Amino acid sequence: MSPSPGPERLTKLSEQTVFTTRILELRSARYRHAGRNRESDYTVIAAPDWVNVVALTPDDRLVLVRQFRYGIDDFSLEIPGGMIDPGEDPVAAARRELREETGYAGGPAHLLGSVHPNPAIQNNRCHLVLVENVQLQGATDWDHDEEIEVSTAPAADVLAWARAGRITHSLVLCALAFFEHWRLERK
Amino acid sequence: MSPSPGPERLTKLSEQTVFTTRILELRSARYRHAGRNRESDYTVIAAPDWVNVVALTPDDRLVLVRQFRYGIDDFSLEIPGGMIDPGEDPVAAARRELREETGYAGGPAHLLGSVHPNPAIQNNRCHLVLVENVQLQGATDWDHDEEIEVSTAPAADVLAWARAGRITHSLVLCALAFFEHWRLERK
Repeated sequence: MSPSPGPERLTKLSEQTVFTTRILELRSARYRHAGRNRESDYTVIAAPDWVNVVALTPDDRLVLVRQFRYGIDDFSLEIPGGMIDPGEDPVAAARRELREETGYAGGPAHLLGSVHPNPAIQNNRCHLVLVENVQLQGATDWDHDEEIEVSTAPAADVLAWARAGRITHSLVLCALAFFEHWRLERK
Repeated sequence: MSPSPGPERLTKLSEQTVFTTRILELRSARYRHAGRNRESDYTVIAAPDWVNVVALTPDDRLVLVRQFRYGIDDFSLEIPGGMIDPGEDPVAAARRELREETGYAGGPAHLLGSVHPNPAIQNNRCHLVLVENVQLQGATDWDHDEEIEVSTAPAADVLAWARAGRITHSLVLCALAFFEHWRLERK
């Protein structure tokens, strides 16, 4: 039996923006599957890269934000995060979003990991950044339609809430999973 | 100091579909913030609930799928999954997607957890289902534009790949994180 060649890499023939909002573009991409001699159109959600911030205080607490989220028409408990500006470094973006959303700022920071929110339909990545030794250092600087409840909780509690379904944002859960592994390896 | 009332629950005044594709709708929702006496329009991605399947073989291997994903214009290594049909139970959908995409089917199944892919802009949930004792039981039944490389790998290896960045799909990483906790608790 000859080895399977595996799935074919599709060739993008063209792509056009069909709808634009403040935070994303909907695009229609035409792809060709040479082996099947077939062309199909697929919808792609194009968005800037995002960042999520695991912000750890000196006493092992995480900074949390609670906001009304119109996507689910309800409140969501999350870690800080947002869109990365064009050309901005993910770690710098993490520090900026943390400061703007919560007033916290801190010491050493590094990338825990980078994920694709949804490779099937979405082109961007979300970078997961740990900032250690954060402290409340100033006032928040919210966008005009942001309204955020800032709190801290013991890191172990937050990890337990992730397992128990109290935190449901998939990208936040990814960040906490990477953080949990970092924490275990450090011990 | 009086206790902070926290962020206000916004009131949805209206919602209309502005663009429709095979797999999602883009909607524009108008919300009112009473305390600020302000109305704003937000974009919501409306999609059916999704399911991801952690399929475990009797010899502690996980079933994997590798596909070309036009969202990222590249291949992605994932666990099986897809859209839940209207009225379909998440566990039943998991068994169906597993069978259709890979030919594997199995024994006991249960919900590991449910997450929101993105509460900020997206209304749906993704259910994460574990199916134990799966075995190759038949042919695949792909959609007309699916082309999937099916494989299995030791569960411990897959979890290591998740940590190492070889698996990048956020919802797959969530499923593996829940699976990892289930596995630790069972030991």
